[in-house]
Amino acid sequence: MPQESDHGQAIAPQGSRIDAYVDRYAARATGMVASEVRALFAVASRPEVVSLAGGMPYVTALPLDVVGELVADLVARRGPVALQYGSGQGDPHLREQICEVMRLEGIEANSNDVVVTVGSQQALDLITRVFIDPGDVILAEGPSYVGALGTFSAYQARVIHIAMDDEGMIPESLAQTIYALKTAGTRIKFLYTIPNFHNPAGVTLNTTRRQQILEICQRADVLIVEDNPYGLLGFEGTTMRALRADCPDGVVYLGSFSKTLAPGFRVGWALAPHAIRDKLVLAMESAVLSHSTFTQLAVGQYLTTQPWRQQIKTFRELYCERRDAMLGALEAMMPAGCSWTRPAGGFFVWATLPEGLDAKVLLPRAVAERVAFVPGAGFYADGGGARNMRLSYCYPEPERIREGVRRLAGVIEQEMQTRETFGPDAPIERGGVDTPGPDLA
Amino acid sequence: MPQESDHGQAIAPQGSRIDAYVDRYAARATGMVASEVRALFAVASRPEVVSLAGGMPYVTALPLDVVGELVADLVARRGPVALQYGSGQGDPHLREQICEVMRLEGIEANSNDVVVTVGSQQALDLITRVFIDPGDVILAEGPSYVGALGTFSAYQARVIHIAMDDEGMIPESLAQTIYALKTAGTRIKFLYTIPNFHNPAGVTLNTTRRQQILEICQRADVLIVEDNPYGLLGFEGTTMRALRADCPDGVVYLGSFSKTLAPGFRVGWALAPHAIRDKLVLAMESAVLSHSTFTQLAVGQYLTTQPWRQQIKTFRELYCERRDAMLGALEAMMPAGCSWTRPAGGFFVWATLPEGLDAKVLLPRAVAERVAFVPGAGFYADGGGARNMRLSYCYPEPERIREGVRRLAGVIEQEMQTRETFGPDAPIERGGVDTPGPDLA
Repeated sequence: MPQESDHGQAIAPQGSRIDAYVDRYAARATGMVASEVRALFAVASRPEVVSLAGGMPYVTALPLDVVGELVADLVARRGPVALQYGSGQGDPHLREQICEVMRLEGIEANSNDVVVTVGSQQALDLITRVFIDPGDVILAEGPSYVGALGTFSAYQARVIHIAMDDEGMIPESLAQTIYALKTAGTRIKFLYTIPNFHNPAGVTLNTTRRQQILEICQRADVLIVEDNPYGLLGFEGTTMRALRADCPDGVVYLGSFSKTLAPGFRVGWALAPHAIRDKLVLAMESAVLSHSTFTQLAVGQYLTTQPWRQQIKTFRELYCERRDAMLGALEAMMPAGCSWTRPAGGFFVWATLPEGLDAKVLLPRAVAERVAFVPGAGFYADGGGARNMRLSYCYPEPERIREGVRRLAGVIEQEMQTRETFGPDAPIERGGVDTPGPDLA
Repeated sequence: MPQESDHGQAIAPQGSRIDAYVDRYAARATGMVASEVRALFAVASRPEVVSLAGGMPYVTALPLDVVGELVADLVARRGPVALQYGSGQGDPHLREQICEVMRLEGIEANSNDVVVTVGSQQALDLITRVFIDPGDVILAEGPSYVGALGTFSAYQARVIHIAMDDEGMIPESLAQTIYALKTAGTRIKFLYTIPNFHNPAGVTLNTTRRQQILEICQRADVLIVEDNPYGLLGFEGTTMRALRADCPDGVVYLGSFSKTLAPGFRVGWALAPHAIRDKLVLAMESAVLSHSTFTQLAVGQYLTTQPWRQQIKTFRELYCERRDAMLGALEAMMPAGCSWTRPAGGFFVWATLPEGLDAKVLLPRAVAERVAFVPGAGFYADGGGARNMRLSYCYPEPERIREGVRRLAGVIEQEMQTRETFGPDAPIERGGVDTPGPDLA
């Protein structure tokens, strides 16, 4: 009950969970609610739980002594610069090095068109800020990256999903959706796509489709936002050619050092057509003034002095071994009726449960059995994904992955039996963020 | 002229400045235009120009060798944590240390109510994101911090200024404005204020007024956003009590290590009532996932191992000497009819030109005479400030400050003579960002 203060005003008791500001938030804040699933992931971060939920890279594979020396040297030699404010666009030398990295994917770019961002997540935020008014339409694969969907939702965009199969986004589905929207007089602001080792779907857009999708978008005048954090982590030795490589004026390309070096520096980037780049820099300054000069120069120094291509190869081999452990375990242990994708790179497998099962219902039971995953619903903006789960193999060691899959298979098996006895699960309503925080394995 | 491509489509020539996307940006992007003044500041960063324009702290005063050892040690001992993703809210230990820093200003806070941000600029961005729908009203001192006005404008807020004098914001002006807005049925989302060593005004809110402003806002149920980057940089030895110290439920407090340590780490924070804190964390995750663990732990390590209070004292003495150099030079050299504030801390003096002069007209002439300042117009959302200029003394050495003021006084003198001969300047229209980028001294 509210207490009376000296002044006769009713005030909420100290530490009350009643939100005094509930009626004055912006409309966009309505969706900013943490889901109950979130609490489960906190439990899942305990060491006895095998987490197949998070997307943390295995940074322990880095030469930590070398990185330590490198940052010390940076402060000693360039301290007054490294500790100072930097430009909103990002360090010029790092932007040149970023162009060199992108060249591995066939991209020829001018460093003047690169904006360094606080991880590629911020690039997503800024591009959405520049383009999206409430109600505007964004096209995205279904499923799509949960962090992008969260940002799109924060800007009150309307996301329309394009169907995928094992070869990535289906061009016919894209063309039909664009046609239907244009016919209805709806403007499409951009197509958001993750062509390589898709998060969460674990599939890669094939070469033929890349050309088809570029043609469809150019003909329909639809801007493409190409999000490519995993592009250099292909297990089969070849690197796919970026969409941006064949369409400099129609693609905003997003890249990141979070998976090829370390996420702790938060260095990502956007490469954009010149006019869009101008807007991104101003949006960047309004958002954070400038990124950390220190971490930008640290990444630059790493690229200059270290065999970074070799390090990426080390990561590739490590994740490939874990992918094999996961696919092997799924093959050996998952009950009949389950299916899953076979990623050729990146961090994630996308699994589908037999009809009638709901991954979100399953999660608390799985956590009780000491295994965690991310339910598929968070990767759809339209209520899809109930039967799906994202399984990550990036962080746990192979033996733990096998143990995790063993536990998960047991939970699914039991669920199928229960369902046979009692009928299907009641679906769980959506609400809030259904994924672990960025710091959970 | 557009060229014909093979497919018969008209395309803009490579490298053209024509913006193909001009008709599809969000409404908020309309104001995202770089002003021509910006180019002048780039010129002003040349060594022969004395820049009194920027707000770069003098990081050279830091013990760089110690900072270098500290970051190397951090990677060696805690590399796998420092290089990994962190929580959206920020490192728990750093949040406790932040509470210790805030205790110097009378704030008793729980570290659970702190959110670490990418500089306090990001805290401003997130709080605006959470509260502001287009057209919503924010109150702010006139003049106010240009970076805040830029963010408010990016969210399409309507800023209404509250008058100031040498003792800071005028409570009667605040009360009257609130009354007028409430009478008109207008909801006020928050009051944005910089109580200490105001940027750009160089004045400090006195103790009596602090209580009055808290009472006015509590009675009218107006949330206060207290921005306090310079609070510990007072030259007279005493630290003012924060507004937040006396009103935990009605104030969001923003702090920063950019001026007490170094801006290159980009570590700032918001301390907010619990419900608002929840929203800020979700907004943070949507914006950048999480801040750099590396720079957060570096700041934490610095606070743990170094005499940081002593270092702040060193900064205070350094800036005090420069403030004295600037005030002395202004007193000795400025033409009659000019006036300026006398800051008791922080980085800035706010000068007023004689009637009829326009600081923006003056700037190119000043740069030609090798001195730069920031014209006052950028610090107002309502077209005010034409006769004002912000003069910063944080970065140049005392001798350079004196030389800069000498050059500036000469330019003003000449302008006054010209004006006597030819009549007043034609005012310059506003448009775009009128301040230097974050990396310019």
